Amino acid sequence: MSQLGIENFIAHLSIDCVIFGYAEKELKVLISRHKFGQRSWVLPGGYVGKTEGIDAAARRILKERTHLENIYLEQFRVFGHENRVAGSPHIDTLRSELTQVYGKENADWMTTRFVCIGYYALVDIRRVNPQNGEFDEYLEWRSIRDIPPMIHDHNEILSAALEALRANLDKKLIGFNLLPETFTMREVQELYEAVYDRPFAMNNFQKKMLGLNVLERLEKKFTGAQNKAPYLYRFKKS
Amino acid sequence: MSQLGIENFIAHLSIDCVIFGYAEKELKVLISRHKFGQRSWVLPGGYVGKTEGIDAAARRILKERTHLENIYLEQFRVFGHENRVAGSPHIDTLRSELTQVYGKENADWMTTRFVCIGYYALVDIRRVNPQNGEFDEYLEWRSIRDIPPMIHDHNEILSAALEALRANLDKKLIGFNLLPETFTMREVQELYEAVYDRPFAMNNFQKKMLGLNVLERLEKKFTGAQNKAPYLYRFKKS
Repeated sequence: MSQLGIENFIAHLSIDCVIFGYAEKELKVLISRHKFGQRSWVLPGGYVGKTEGIDAAARRILKERTHLENIYLEQFRVFGHENRVAGSPHIDTLRSELTQVYGKENADWMTTRFVCIGYYALVDIRRVNPQNGEFDEYLEWRSIRDIPPMIHDHNEILSAALEALRANLDKKLIGFNLLPETFTMREVQELYEAVYDRPFAMNNFQKKMLGLNVLERLEKKFTGAQNKAPYLYRFKKS
Repeated sequence: MSQLGIENFIAHLSIDCVIFGYAEKELKVLISRHKFGQRSWVLPGGYVGKTEGIDAAARRILKERTHLENIYLEQFRVFGHENRVAGSPHIDTLRSELTQVYGKENADWMTTRFVCIGYYALVDIRRVNPQNGEFDEYLEWRSIRDIPPMIHDHNEILSAALEALRANLDKKLIGFNLLPETFTMREVQELYEAVYDRPFAMNNFQKKMLGLNVLERLEKKFTGAQNKAPYLYRFKKS
Protein backbone atom coordinates (compact mmCIF):
# COMPACT_ATOMS: atom_id res chain seq x y z
CA MET A 1 0.00 0.00 0.00
CA SER A 2 1.18 3.47 -0.83
CA GLN A 3 0.99 6.54 1.35
CA LEU A 4 -2.39 7.16 -0.31
CA GLY A 5 -3.90 4.49 1.90
CA ILE A 6 -6.78 3.77 -0.43
CA GLU A 7 -8.06 1.22 2.06
CA ASN A 8 -9.14 4.23 4.15
CA PHE A 9 -11.38 5.66 1.40
CA ILE A 10 -14.80 4.76 0.01
CA ALA A 11 -14.32 3.13 -3.38
CA HIS A 12 -15.99 4.57 -6.49
CA LEU A 13 -16.68 7.94 -4.88
CA SER A 14 -14.68 11.12 -5.50
CA ILE A 15 -14.98 14.83 -4.89
CA ASP A 16 -13.89 17.47 -7.36
CA CYS A 17 -13.63 21.12 -6.41
CA VAL A 18 -14.10 24.14 -8.61
CA ILE A 19 -12.23 26.83 -6.68
CA PHE A 20 -13.23 30.28 -7.90
CA GLY A 21 -11.13 33.36 -7.30
CA TYR A 22 -11.29 36.89 -8.67
CA ALA A 23 -8.44 39.11 -9.82
CA GLU A 24 -7.65 41.55 -12.60
CA LYS A 25 -11.39 41.95 -13.26
CA GLU A 26 -11.60 38.27 -14.20
CA LEU A 27 -13.19 35.23 -12.63
CA LYS A 28 -10.51 32.57 -12.19
CA VAL A 29 -10.43 28.87 -11.39
CA LEU A 30 -7.61 26.99 -9.69
CA ILE A 31 -6.73 24.02 -11.88
CA SER A 32 -4.04 21.40 -11.57
CA ARG A 33 -1.48 19.98 -13.93
CA HIS A 34 -1.74 16.27 -13.09
CA LYS A 35 1.48 14.36 -12.55
CA PHE A 36 0.03 11.44 -14.49
CA GLY A 37 -2.43 10.92 -17.34
CA GLN A 38 0.00 12.53 -19.77
CA ARG A 39 0.06 15.57 -17.52
CA SER A 40 -3.61 16.40 -18.20
CA TRP A 41 -5.24 19.42 -16.65
CA VAL A 42 -7.66 18.43 -13.89
CA LEU A 43 -9.81 19.98 -11.21
CA PRO A 44 -8.36 19.58 -7.71
CA GLY A 45 -10.04 16.57 -6.19
CA GLY A 46 -9.78 13.70 -3.78
CA TYR A 47 -11.54 10.81 -2.12
CA VAL A 48 -13.92 10.47 0.82
CA GLY A 49 -12.59 8.82 3.98
CA LYS A 50 -14.55 5.85 5.27
CA THR A 51 -15.23 7.71 8.51
CA GLU A 52 -15.46 11.19 7.05
CA GLY A 53 -18.57 13.15 5.98
CA ILE A 54 -18.63 14.40 2.41
CA ASP A 55 -18.57 18.08 3.41
CA ALA A 56 -15.62 17.40 5.71
CA ALA A 57 -13.85 15.63 2.85
CA ALA A 58 -14.40 18.64 0.58
CA ARG A 59 -13.07 21.00 3.26
CA ARG A 60 -10.00 18.79 3.74
CA ILE A 61 -9.33 18.69 -0.02
CA LEU A 62 -9.65 22.48 -0.19
CA LYS A 63 -7.43 23.02 2.80
CA GLU A 64 -4.74 20.80 1.26
CA ARG A 65 -4.67 23.02 -1.85
CA THR A 66 -5.24 26.47 -0.30
CA HIS A 67 -4.19 26.19 3.37
CA LEU A 68 -7.44 28.03 4.12
CA GLU A 69 -10.13 27.06 6.59
CA ASN A 70 -13.72 28.32 6.63
CA ILE A 71 -13.89 28.62 2.87
CA TYR A 72 -17.31 29.29 1.35
CA LEU A 73 -18.21 25.93 -0.12
CA GLU A 74 -21.28 24.57 -1.83
CA GLN A 75 -22.14 21.16 -3.18
CA PHE A 76 -23.77 21.66 -6.58
CA ARG A 77 -24.20 18.38 -8.46
CA VAL A 78 -23.20 14.73 -8.73
CA PHE A 79 -21.62 13.43 -11.91
CA GLY A 80 -22.37 9.76 -12.23
CA HIS A 81 -22.48 8.68 -15.84
CA GLU A 82 -21.49 5.02 -16.05
CA ASN A 83 -18.56 5.75 -18.38
CA ARG A 84 -16.96 8.67 -16.60
CA VAL A 85 -13.32 8.02 -15.58
CA ALA A 86 -13.25 4.30 -16.43
CA GLY A 87 -14.46 5.07 -19.96
CA SER A 88 -12.12 8.01 -20.57
CA PRO A 89 -10.10 7.84 -23.78
CA HIS A 90 -6.70 7.79 -22.07
CA ILE A 91 -7.60 5.69 -19.06
CA ASP A 92 -5.26 2.82 -20.01
CA THR A 93 -2.27 5.17 -20.20
CA LEU A 94 -3.23 6.75 -16.88
CA ARG A 95 -3.60 3.31 -15.28
CA SER A 96 -0.18 2.16 -16.43
CA GLU A 97 1.48 5.38 -15.28
CA LEU A 98 -0.18 5.04 -11.88
CA THR A 99 0.76 1.35 -11.67
CA GLN A 100 4.45 2.22 -11.89
CA VAL A 101 4.21 4.47 -8.84
CA TYR A 102 1.42 3.02 -6.71
CA GLY A 103 1.23 -0.62 -7.82
CA LYS A 104 -1.48 -2.42 -9.73
CA GLU A 105 -4.05 -2.72 -6.96
CA ASN A 106 -4.03 1.00 -6.23
CA ALA A 107 -3.93 1.96 -9.90
CA ASP A 108 -6.93 -0.26 -10.64
CA TRP A 109 -8.80 1.27 -7.70
CA MET A 110 -8.06 4.80 -8.93
CA THR A 111 -9.04 4.19 -12.56
CA THR A 112 -12.27 2.29 -12.06
CA ARG A 113 -15.69 3.88 -12.28
CA PHE A 114 -16.16 6.95 -10.07
CA VAL A 115 -19.25 8.86 -9.06
CA CYS A 116 -18.07 12.41 -8.43
CA ILE A 117 -19.63 14.94 -6.08
CA GLY A 118 -18.98 18.46 -7.37
CA TYR A 119 -18.35 21.33 -4.95
CA TYR A 120 -17.57 24.91 -5.76
CA ALA A 121 -15.62 27.17 -3.44
CA LEU A 122 -15.24 30.95 -3.36
CA VAL A 123 -11.97 32.35 -2.04
CA ASP A 124 -10.22 35.67 -1.67
CA ILE A 125 -7.48 34.92 -4.18
CA ARG A 126 -4.99 37.18 -2.36
CA ARG A 127 -5.08 34.86 0.66
CA VAL A 128 -4.33 31.67 -1.30
CA ASN A 129 -0.88 30.27 -1.73
CA PRO A 130 -1.61 27.10 -3.74
CA GLN A 131 -0.14 23.88 -2.35
CA ASN A 132 0.25 20.75 -4.43
CA GLY A 133 -1.78 17.70 -3.48
CA GLU A 134 -0.72 14.10 -4.06
CA PHE A 135 -1.32 14.19 -7.82
CA ASP A 136 -0.60 17.83 -8.59
CA GLU A 137 2.55 18.73 -10.49
CA TYR A 138 1.53 22.35 -10.00
CA LEU A 139 -1.61 24.44 -9.56
CA GLU A 140 -2.49 27.48 -11.60
CA TRP A 141 -5.15 30.20 -11.57
CA ARG A 142 -6.74 30.39 -15.00
CA SER A 143 -9.32 32.84 -16.26
CA ILE A 144 -12.66 31.20 -17.09
CA ARG A 145 -12.06 32.60 -20.58
CA ASP A 146 -8.92 30.51 -20.87
CA ILE A 147 -9.64 27.02 -19.54
CA PRO A 148 -7.73 24.26 -21.34
CA PRO A 149 -9.28 20.88 -22.17
CA MET A 150 -9.29 18.86 -18.95
CA ILE A 151 -9.41 15.14 -18.15
CA HIS A 152 -12.62 13.05 -18.10
CA ASP A 153 -15.71 15.31 -17.75
CA HIS A 154 -13.92 18.05 -15.79
CA ASN A 155 -14.78 20.80 -18.30
CA GLU A 156 -18.44 19.85 -17.92
CA ILE A 157 -18.09 19.94 -14.11
CA LEU A 158 -16.59 23.43 -14.33
CA SER A 159 -19.42 24.65 -16.60
CA ALA A 160 -22.02 23.30 -14.17
CA ALA A 161 -20.25 25.02 -11.26
CA LEU A 162 -20.25 28.33 -13.13
CA GLU A 163 -23.96 27.92 -13.83
CA ALA A 164 -24.61 27.23 -10.13
CA LEU A 165 -22.49 30.24 -9.13
CA ARG A 166 -24.46 32.48 -11.50
CA ALA A 167 -27.75 31.18 -10.11
CA ASN A 168 -26.64 31.80 -6.52
CA LEU A 169 -24.44 34.91 -6.62
CA ASP A 170 -27.29 37.36 -6.32
CA LYS A 171 -29.80 35.15 -4.55
CA LYS A 172 -27.48 34.20 -1.72
CA LEU A 173 -25.15 37.24 -1.81
CA ILE A 174 -22.10 35.03 -1.82
CA GLY A 175 -19.98 37.12 -4.18
CA PHE A 176 -18.34 38.99 -1.31
CA ASN A 177 -16.39 35.83 -0.55
CA LEU A 178 -14.41 36.57 -3.72
CA LEU A 179 -13.43 40.10 -2.61
CA PRO A 180 -10.99 41.38 0.00
CA GLU A 181 -12.51 42.59 3.26
CA THR A 182 -13.06 46.14 2.01
CA PHE A 183 -13.91 47.20 -1.53
CA THR A 184 -15.43 50.01 -3.55
CA MET A 185 -18.83 49.80 -5.21
CA ARG A 186 -17.13 49.81 -8.57
CA GLU A 187 -15.16 46.70 -7.58
CA VAL A 188 -18.38 44.89 -6.66
CA GLN A 189 -19.87 45.84 -10.01
CA GLU A 190 -16.78 44.63 -11.87
CA LEU A 191 -17.00 41.33 -10.03
CA TYR A 192 -20.64 40.90 -11.08
CA GLU A 193 -19.72 41.79 -14.64
CA ALA A 194 -16.97 39.17 -14.63
CA VAL A 195 -19.23 36.43 -13.25
CA TYR A 196 -22.17 37.13 -15.55
CA ASP A 197 -20.00 38.19 -18.49
CA ARG A 198 -22.13 41.25 -19.23
CA PRO A 199 -22.14 44.94 -18.26
CA PHE A 200 -24.38 46.35 -15.51
CA ALA A 201 -25.65 49.95 -15.48
CA MET A 202 -23.72 51.75 -12.71
CA ASN A 203 -26.54 53.78 -11.14
CA ASN A 204 -28.97 50.87 -11.03
CA PHE A 205 -26.34 48.52 -9.73
CA GLN A 206 -25.29 50.85 -6.92
CA LYS A 207 -28.89 51.57 -5.94
CA LYS A 208 -29.75 47.88 -5.87
CA MET A 209 -26.68 46.90 -3.82
CA LEU A 210 -27.24 49.65 -1.25
CA GLY A 211 -30.93 48.74 -1.08
CA LEU A 212 -30.02 45.23 0.05
CA ASN A 213 -28.76 46.71 3.30
CA VAL A 214 -25.89 44.26 3.59
CA LEU A 215 -23.03 46.72 3.12
CA GLU A 216 -21.43 48.88 5.76
CA ARG A 217 -19.95 52.14 4.45
CA LEU A 218 -16.44 52.93 5.73
CA GLU A 219 -14.03 55.79 5.05
CA LYS A 220 -13.17 57.01 1.56
CA LYS A 221 -10.46 55.21 -0.31
CA PHE A 222 -7.49 57.53 -0.55
CA THR A 223 -6.60 58.07 -4.18
CA GLY A 224 -4.85 61.44 -4.16
CA ALA A 225 -7.84 63.16 -5.83
CA GLN A 226 -9.67 63.91 -2.61
CA ASN A 227 -13.10 64.86 -3.82
CA LYS A 228 -13.41 62.01 -6.29
CA ALA A 229 -12.34 59.34 -3.84
CA PRO A 230 -14.87 56.47 -3.70
CA TYR A 231 -16.17 55.08 -0.44
CA LEU A 232 -14.99 51.76 0.83
CA TYR A 233 -17.56 49.19 1.94
CA ARG A 234 -17.52 46.05 4.01
CA PHE A 235 -20.00 43.15 3.89
CA LYS A 236 -22.04 42.96 7.11
CA LYS A 237 -21.65 39.40 8.27
CA SER A 238 -24.81 38.20 9.93
CA MET B 1 -26.68 -14.37 -2.55
CA SER B 2 -30.26 -13.24 -2.55
CA GLN B 3 -32.32 -12.07 -5.49
CA LEU B 4 -31.08 -8.58 -4.59
CA GLY B 5 -27.75 -9.39 -6.16
CA ILE B 6 -25.84 -6.83 -4.15
CA GLU B 7 -22.69 -7.87 -6.00
CA ASN B 8 -24.16 -5.97 -8.97
CA PHE B 9 -24.38 -2.67 -7.11
CA ILE B 10 -21.87 -0.03 -6.04
CA ALA B 11 -21.34 -0.32 -2.28
CA HIS B 12 -21.96 2.64 0.03
CA LEU B 13 -24.02 4.54 -2.55
CA SER B 14 -27.80 4.81 -2.57
CA ILE B 15 -30.50 6.86 -4.23
CA ASP B 16 -33.61 8.08 -2.46
CA CYS B 17 -36.53 9.57 -4.35
CA VAL B 18 -38.99 12.18 -3.17
CA ILE B 19 -41.95 11.57 -5.48
CA PHE B 20 -44.29 14.55 -5.43
CA GLY B 21 -47.91 14.35 -6.57
CA TYR B 22 -50.81 16.75 -6.27
CA ALA B 23 -54.43 15.98 -5.39
CA GLU B 24 -57.25 17.45 -3.32
CA LYS B 25 -55.45 20.82 -3.36
CA GLU B 26 -52.55 19.29 -1.46
CA LEU B 27 -48.96 18.49 -2.34
CA LYS B 28 -48.34 14.80 -1.60
CA VAL B 29 -45.32 12.55 -1.31
CA LEU B 30 -45.23 8.81 -2.00
CA ILE B 31 -43.69 7.15 1.05
CA SER B 32 -43.12 3.50 1.87
CA ARG B 33 -43.84 1.38 4.88
CA HIS B 34 -40.61 -0.63 5.09
CA LYS B 35 -40.88 -4.39 5.58
CA PHE B 36 -37.98 -4.25 8.02
CA GLY B 37 -36.56 -1.77 10.53
CA GLN B 38 -39.60 -2.16 12.75
CA ARG B 39 -41.75 -1.19 9.77
CA SER B 40 -40.36 2.35 9.65
CA TRP B 41 -41.59 4.83 7.07
CA VAL B 42 -38.98 5.46 4.38
CA LEU B 43 -38.57 7.26 1.09
CA PRO B 44 -38.58 4.91 -1.91
CA GLY B 45 -34.97 4.21 -2.77
CA GLY B 46 -32.48 1.79 -4.21
CA TYR B 47 -28.90 1.20 -5.22
CA VAL B 48 -26.82 2.09 -8.27
CA GLY B 49 -25.81 -0.73 -10.61
CA LYS B 50 -22.11 -1.12 -11.28
CA THR B 51 -22.72 -0.48 -14.98
CA GLU B 52 -25.59 1.96 -14.60
CA GLY B 53 -25.48 5.78 -14.59
CA ILE B 54 -26.97 7.50 -11.55
CA ASP B 55 -29.79 9.13 -13.53
CA ALA B 56 -30.63 5.77 -15.10
CA ALA B 57 -30.68 4.21 -11.63
CA ALA B 58 -33.08 6.89 -10.40
CA ARG B 59 -35.35 6.34 -13.41
CA ARG B 60 -35.32 2.57 -12.79
CA ILE B 61 -36.18 3.03 -9.10
CA LEU B 62 -39.04 5.38 -10.03
CA LYS B 63 -40.34 3.05 -12.70
CA GLU B 64 -40.37 0.13 -10.23
CA ARG B 65 -42.64 2.15 -7.90
CA THR B 66 -44.83 4.00 -10.40
CA HIS B 67 -44.69 2.00 -13.67
CA LEU B 68 -44.16 5.36 -15.37
CA GLU B 69 -41.44 6.30 -17.83
CA ASN B 70 -40.32 9.83 -18.73
CA ILE B 71 -41.03 11.18 -15.28
CA TYR B 72 -39.77 14.68 -14.53
CA LEU B 73 -36.80 14.04 -12.33
CA GLU B 74 -34.16 16.24 -10.77
CA GLN B 75 -31.13 15.47 -8.65
CA PHE B 76 -31.07 17.98 -5.82
CA ARG B 77 -28.47 17.12 -3.17
CA VAL B 78 -26.18 14.44 -1.74
CA PHE B 79 -26.53 13.39 1.87
CA GLY B 80 -23.20 12.11 3.09
CA HIS B 81 -22.81 12.63 6.80
CA GLU B 82 -20.50 9.93 8.17
CA ASN B 83 -23.12 8.65 10.62
CA ARG B 84 -26.14 8.43 8.34
CA VAL B 85 -27.61 4.90 8.08
CA ALA B 86 -24.81 3.08 9.94
CA GLY B 87 -25.21 5.46 12.90
CA SER B 88 -29.02 5.34 13.00
CA PRO B 89 -30.54 4.53 16.39
CA HIS B 90 -32.25 1.30 15.28
CA ILE B 91 -29.60 0.06 12.88
CA ASP B 92 -28.83 -3.09 14.93
CA THR B 93 -32.48 -4.15 14.88
CA LEU B 94 -32.68 -3.48 11.15
CA ARG B 95 -29.50 -5.49 10.54
CA SER B 96 -30.74 -8.50 12.45
CA GLU B 97 -34.12 -8.42 10.70
CA LEU B 98 -32.38 -8.22 7.31
CA THR B 99 -29.96 -11.00 8.29
CA GLN B 100 -32.83 -13.43 8.79
CA VAL B 101 -34.05 -12.89 5.23
CA TYR B 102 -30.94 -12.03 3.22
CA GLY B 103 -28.09 -13.51 5.27
CA LYS B 104 -25.34 -11.78 7.18
CA GLU B 105 -23.20 -10.65 4.25
CA ASN B 106 -26.08 -8.88 2.52
CA ALA B 107 -27.45 -7.43 5.75
CA ASP B 108 -24.03 -6.02 6.63
CA TRP B 109 -23.72 -4.52 3.13
CA MET B 110 -27.15 -2.88 3.44
CA THR B 111 -26.62 -1.41 6.90
CA THR B 112 -23.15 0.01 6.50
CA ARG B 113 -22.43 3.65 5.76
CA PHE B 114 -24.28 5.05 2.72
CA VAL B 115 -23.85 8.25 0.79
CA CYS B 116 -27.28 9.02 -0.63
CA ILE B 117 -28.06 10.96 -3.80
CA GLY B 118 -31.42 12.69 -3.46
CA TYR B 119 -33.73 13.04 -6.47
CA TYR B 120 -37.16 14.55 -6.59
CA ALA B 121 -39.77 13.56 -9.15
CA LEU B 122 -42.99 15.24 -10.22
CA VAL B 123 -45.83 13.00 -11.39
CA ASP B 124 -49.45 13.29 -12.41
CA ILE B 125 -50.83 11.41 -9.43
CA ARG B 126 -53.82 10.12 -11.43
CA ARG B 127 -51.48 8.11 -13.64
CA VAL B 128 -49.65 6.35 -10.79
CA ASN B 129 -50.63 2.97 -9.47
CA PRO B 130 -47.97 2.43 -6.80
CA GLN B 131 -46.06 -0.86 -6.99
CA ASN B 132 -44.08 -2.26 -4.08
CA GLY B 133 -40.33 -2.55 -4.43
CA GLU B 134 -38.17 -5.18 -2.73
CA PHE B 135 -38.41 -3.57 0.73
CA ASP B 136 -41.87 -1.98 0.56
CA GLU B 137 -44.69 -3.47 2.57
CA TYR B 138 -46.91 -0.87 0.94
CA LEU B 139 -46.68 2.64 -0.52
CA GLU B 140 -48.89 5.53 0.44
CA TRP B 141 -49.48 9.09 -0.74
CA ARG B 142 -49.22 11.43 2.23
CA SER B 143 -49.84 15.14 2.34
CA ILE B 144 -46.71 17.17 3.10
CA ARG B 145 -48.69 18.43 6.11
CA ASP B 146 -48.90 14.88 7.44
CA ILE B 147 -45.50 13.21 7.04
CA PRO B 148 -44.68 10.71 9.80
CA PRO B 149 -41.20 10.38 11.31
CA MET B 150 -39.09 8.41 8.82
CA ILE B 151 -35.95 6.30 9.09
CA HIS B 152 -32.40 7.72 9.15
CA ASP B 153 -32.35 11.29 7.74
CA HIS B 154 -35.30 10.77 5.38
CA ASN B 155 -37.35 13.64 6.86
CA GLU B 156 -34.39 15.96 6.23
CA ILE B 157 -34.11 14.66 2.65
CA LEU B 158 -37.80 15.38 2.10
CA SER B 159 -37.44 18.92 3.49
CA ALA B 160 -34.50 19.60 1.19
CA ALA B 161 -36.48 18.29 -1.79
CA LEU B 162 -39.39 20.58 -0.96
CA GLU B 163 -36.99 23.51 -0.72
CA ALA B 164 -35.53 22.63 -4.12
CA LEU B 165 -39.02 22.27 -5.61
CA ARG B 166 -40.00 25.69 -4.28
CA ALA B 167 -36.83 27.23 -5.71
CA ASN B 168 -37.46 25.68 -9.13
CA LEU B 169 -41.25 25.61 -9.58
CA ASP B 170 -41.48 29.10 -10.97
CA LYS B 171 -38.00 29.42 -12.40
CA LYS B 172 -38.18 26.26 -14.49
CA LEU B 173 -41.97 26.06 -14.91
CA ILE B 174 -42.01 22.44 -13.84
CA GLY B 175 -45.28 22.54 -11.88
CA PHE B 176 -47.29 21.43 -14.88
CA ASN B 177 -45.82 17.96 -14.44
CA LEU B 178 -48.02 17.67 -11.35
CA LEU B 179 -51.24 18.47 -13.24
CA PRO B 180 -53.31 16.47 -15.72
CA GLU B 181 -52.90 17.42 -19.38
CA THR B 182 -55.60 20.11 -19.26
CA PHE B 183 -56.44 22.36 -16.33
CA THR B 184 -58.10 25.63 -15.42
CA MET B 185 -56.17 28.71 -14.30
CA ARG B 186 -57.68 28.29 -10.86
CA GLU B 187 -56.22 24.79 -10.63
CA VAL B 188 -52.73 26.12 -11.47
CA GLN B 189 -53.12 28.76 -8.78
CA GLU B 190 -54.24 26.17 -6.22
CA LEU B 191 -51.21 24.07 -7.07
CA TYR B 192 -48.89 27.03 -6.49
CA GLU B 193 -50.66 27.77 -3.22
CA ALA B 194 -50.19 24.17 -2.10
CA VAL B 195 -46.48 24.12 -2.95
CA TYR B 196 -45.66 27.50 -1.41
CA ASP B 197 -48.19 27.16 1.40
CA ARG B 198 -49.49 30.70 0.94
CA PRO B 199 -52.27 32.41 -1.04
CA PHE B 200 -51.68 34.18 -4.36
CA ALA B 201 -53.80 37.11 -5.58
CA MET B 202 -55.95 35.75 -8.44
CA ASN B 203 -55.67 38.64 -10.92
CA ASN B 204 -51.92 38.99 -10.55
CA PHE B 205 -51.41 35.26 -10.74
CA GLN B 206 -53.45 34.89 -13.92
CA LYS B 207 -51.76 37.87 -15.58
CA LYS B 208 -48.32 36.55 -14.71
CA MET B 209 -49.04 33.01 -15.93
CA LEU B 210 -50.52 34.20 -19.24
CA GLY B 211 -47.61 36.60 -19.67
CA LEU B 212 -45.18 33.67 -19.62
CA ASN B 213 -46.63 32.56 -22.94
CA VAL B 214 -46.32 28.87 -22.11
CA LEU B 215 -50.04 28.05 -21.93
CA GLU B 216 -52.32 27.20 -24.81
CA ARG B 217 -55.96 28.12 -24.26
CA LEU B 218 -58.46 25.41 -25.19
CA GLU B 219 -62.28 25.23 -25.01
CA LYS B 220 -64.23 26.17 -21.92
CA LYS B 221 -64.67 23.56 -19.24
CA PHE B 222 -68.30 22.51 -19.25
CA THR B 223 -69.78 23.11 -15.83
CA GLY B 224 -73.49 23.57 -16.57
CA ALA B 225 -73.33 27.33 -15.92
CA GLN B 226 -72.33 28.25 -19.46
CA ASN B 227 -71.26 31.86 -19.07
CA LYS B 228 -69.21 31.26 -15.93
CA ALA B 229 -67.35 28.27 -17.33
CA PRO B 230 -63.57 28.70 -17.02
CA TYR B 231 -61.23 28.07 -19.91
CA LEU B 232 -59.09 24.98 -20.00
CA TYR B 233 -55.39 25.34 -20.70
CA ARG B 234 -52.60 23.05 -21.79
CA PHE B 235 -48.86 23.49 -21.21
CA LYS B 236 -47.04 24.12 -24.49
CA LYS B 237 -44.26 21.57 -24.56
CA SER B 238 -41.20 22.99 -26.26
